[in-house]
Amino acid sequence: MPTIEDVRTAAAGLHGRIHRTPMVESSALDELFGGRLTLKAELFQKTGSFKVRGLLNKTLKLTAEERERGVITVSAGNAAGALAWAARDAGVPATVVMAKTAVPAKIAAARAYGAQVELVEGDLMGAYESIRDERKLTGVHPFDDLDVIAGHGSLALELLDDRPEVDTVLVPVGGGGLISGVALALKLIRPSIRVIGIEPENADVVSRSLAAGSPQKLPTAKSVADGLAAPVCGTHNYAIIAQYVDQVVRVSEESIIEATRLVMSRTKLALEPAAAAPFAALLEGKVELGTLTAGVVSGGNLDVAKLAL
Amino acid sequence: MPTIEDVRTAAAGLHGRIHRTPMVESSALDELFGGRLTLKAELFQKTGSFKVRGLLNKTLKLTAEERERGVITVSAGNAAGALAWAARDAGVPATVVMAKTAVPAKIAAARAYGAQVELVEGDLMGAYESIRDERKLTGVHPFDDLDVIAGHGSLALELLDDRPEVDTVLVPVGGGGLISGVALALKLIRPSIRVIGIEPENADVVSRSLAAGSPQKLPTAKSVADGLAAPVCGTHNYAIIAQYVDQVVRVSEESIIEATRLVMSRTKLALEPAAAAPFAALLEGKVELGTLTAGVVSGGNLDVAKLAL
Repeated sequence: MPTIEDVRTAAAGLHGRIHRTPMVESSALDELFGGRLTLKAELFQKTGSFKVRGLLNKTLKLTAEERERGVITVSAGNAAGALAWAARDAGVPATVVMAKTAVPAKIAAARAYGAQVELVEGDLMGAYESIRDERKLTGVHPFDDLDVIAGHGSLALELLDDRPEVDTVLVPVGGGGLISGVALALKLIRPSIRVIGIEPENADVVSRSLAAGSPQKLPTAKSVADGLAAPVCGTHNYAIIAQYVDQVVRVSEESIIEATRLVMSRTKLALEPAAAAPFAALLEGKVELGTLTAGVVSGGNLDVAKLAL
Repeated sequence: MPTIEDVRTAAAGLHGRIHRTPMVESSALDELFGGRLTLKAELFQKTGSFKVRGLLNKTLKLTAEERERGVITVSAGNAAGALAWAARDAGVPATVVMAKTAVPAKIAAARAYGAQVELVEGDLMGAYESIRDERKLTGVHPFDDLDVIAGHGSLALELLDDRPEVDTVLVPVGGGGLISGVALALKLIRPSIRVIGIEPENADVVSRSLAAGSPQKLPTAKSVADGLAAPVCGTHNYAIIAQYVDQVVRVSEESIIEATRLVMSRTKLALEPAAAAPFAALLEGKVELGTLTAGVVSGGNLDVAKLAL
C-alpha cells in the first residue's frame, strides 16, 4: 500500500504540471439537500478528469527502458485521454485500448493527444494484454497500480488544504482507482473523516467485491455513467477500500441522470454522469450529510455532440 | 448616459450581494483559435447570468413608493429570474412577463425566486405594458434603463481589474443591455480597448439599428440563443453602442450551436447558447484576436431537461 509520503511525493511531482482544481459551492444545492456541500471541481483538471493525476505520476516514475518501449493502457475513456496526455508530456509513445462504444469525444481526445487508439469489441482486458505482449509495450493499469493510486491521492491533499473542516467525502466509484487514493490519503491524515463511495447499480463491482470479501469481476458493466462502468475491482484498490472506505452505496441510472441535470443547472458545471454519482446518492437519501460534505466532481467529458439545443 | 462614477457606485452597491465571477483560461481554446483568450465566467453569477447586475442595481435605487407598488419586467428568461431574485432580496413583490415558449428552466427559476409569472403568446411588450398599467406596478425595462446599464458596467470593472492587459472584448448582443454597460465602462476607463458585439443573424436588431442610424424593431426574433432574441434595440442602449462599440458582427445559428459544444467540451463550463456567441464569431473568422481577448460568457441557463445522456 502507498504511504502518505508516497502521496505527498506524487503531489510534489505533479505540482505545476497539472491544475490545482477549485472548490465550488452552491447555495441552491445546500438548500435543496439541507446541509453544507462543497464540490471538488476536478472536471477542470487537465484532460477533463482526475485520471491524469495517477497516470502522470505513473509515467513520471517509469524507467528509461520502460519509456523507450512506449506505454499502453485500457480505458472506458478518461484514462485513455489522461495517459495519452501524460505520455505526450513525457515524450513517451502511447497506445490506448478502448471499446468501440466509448464516448466519441473521449476517443477523439486520446487521438488528439497523440495516442494510437485501438478500438475493440468484446473483451477489452484481453485485447489490452495481447497487444501489450505482442508489441512489447509497458502496460499501465488504469487503476490497479500503486503509483496511480498515490497520484490520485493528491486530490485529497488539496481538498483538506482548501476545506479543512470537511468531515464527509463522497467519491464516485468505478474500478476503485480514485476512491482508493483519496480514502488512503484522507484517513492517514485524519482518521475521523468519513469516506463514502457511490457506484451505479448497473456496475457495482466494488459493492460485490466487498460483500464477497475479495475483488470480483462482472461479465459486463454498462451505465449512463460510462466512467464508472468498470467490470473489475482492482486488487490493490480492493485492499485499500476494504480498510479505509466507510461505506459504498449504489444508485440507479435514473438518479444519475437526474443528478447530472440538477448539478449542471445549479452550478453551471458541465459535469459528466460519473461525476454526478455523489449527488445521485443524496437524491436517493442514501447518504447522511456531515457538517461539511465534499462531493468529488470527477470529470466533465460529456458527449457534447448529444447536447440538444 | 451613465458616467463612470455611476458604474462605480453601482459596483459598490452590488458588492457582497452578488458574485465576483472568475476568469477562465483554456490552452485548448488558445491553440484552436491561435491567440490568447480569457473568459469572464458570468454564468457563475447569481441566477446564472449577468442580468442580476443591472436589475439589482435598479431595484436598490427604487423609491419606497415604487417598491411598495411592486415591480414588473418582460423577459426572454434571464432578466425574469434576475429581477425575481433581486426583488426577493429587496423585499419587493415582482411580476414577470415571459413568452409561453421560454426555456422551461428559466420560467421555473423566476417562480422559484418568488415572482408571479405571466406567460403570454404574441406581443410580449404589449402584454407587459398593459399588465403594468392595470395593476399600477413599477415597470423595470430589462435593458433600456440607465440604472440597469450602469449595473451591467460593473462587469467591465472586474474584467479590467483581473486582466488589465485585455485589449479586445467580445460581448454577446441581444437588445443591447450588456454591451452598452460594458462598452461604456471600458471605453471611459481605457479608450484604446476594442469592444466587439456579436448577435445572431436571426435576431440582428442592433446591426439593423446601426445601419439605419436609429433604434429599430423586428416583427419577431427567434434564435437558438434565446437570450439574444430581443426584437428591439433600446434607445439608451443604441446611443451608447453607436458611440462606444467598435463593431457588431452577426453569426449563424449553426456557428452558435457549434461554439456552445466546443466551449463546453474544452472548458467544462455549462454555458447557454447566447454565451457562446463570441466564440461563434471566432469560428466564422469574423473577429481578429487582440493580444489578450476576453469573451463574456454571459449565462448558463441551459435547458438541462434536453440534455441527452
